[in-house]
Amino acid sequence: MNITHIEHIGIAVKSIEEAKKYYEDILGLKCYAEEEVSDQKVKTAFFLVGQTKIELLEATSEDSSVAKFIEKRGEGIHHIAFANENTDKALKEVEEKGVVLIDKQARKGAEELSIGFLHPKSTFGVLTEFCSK
Amino acid sequence: MNITHIEHIGIAVKSIEEAKKYYEDILGLKCYAEEEVSDQKVKTAFFLVGQTKIELLEATSEDSSVAKFIEKRGEGIHHIAFANENTDKALKEVEEKGVVLIDKQARKGAEELSIGFLHPKSTFGVLTEFCSK
Repeated sequence: MNITHIEHIGIAVKSIEEAKKYYEDILGLKCYAEEEVSDQKVKTAFFLVGQTKIELLEATSEDSSVAKFIEKRGEGIHHIAFANENTDKALKEVEEKGVVLIDKQARKGAEELSIGFLHPKSTFGVLTEFCSK
Repeated sequence: MNITHIEHIGIAVKSIEEAKKYYEDILGLKCYAEEEVSDQKVKTAFFLVGQTKIELLEATSEDSSVAKFIEKRGEGIHHIAFANENTDKALKEVEEKGVVLIDKQARKGAEELSIGFLHPKSTFGVLTEFCSK
């Protein structure tokens, strides 16, 4: 596996509309895209910060994992996504080394990326995503 | 304020020795430095991932904020740090816009950076750091 950079950091918020004001008006970042990912029951908003994106996540359903995260822990950093060349290969490689996967195979995420999640019980509590183009 | 990139992502772990194995042997990243920051009662270990560092944080005392974080929420992503030109100026700028600060003035952090924290109650649950050289 060749991790090239941190593709994005996912942040769970109750309201993208409210949180956007902080990222735009206070931190001076610019939201360049918003997208609904129905598969994950979330709305997303993206901000580019150097090489890495901030991805705000708002649940569109009470049974969204983002809604459950907020219910349990409150708003905050939800996951970290590492860019690599091939998500399927990367998932297979870490599984062979004993990592428990949430996604056994890559699936389509926001921005048409090929994505897959590792289980936080194998990653010292960090919900970790691989993604590739 | 001019945020140029994400300087680092801080991750709270119980044992740097244990977590390092995951970041090195499984993700294939390389730990390039370890440092104790007595001011914050933590040991740190750094990995460079593109433009951004992963900073593992292990408490050196039970009253360290990292120990309290783990006690409350378990191991996981602790904070996000935005690189900017001048931390003192950036802190002042966001305070004037109503953000509650943890650090009213910049102080010295790991890697000799000038750092300052914003309170998560003003940042939609994300413990946020500014840092500059």
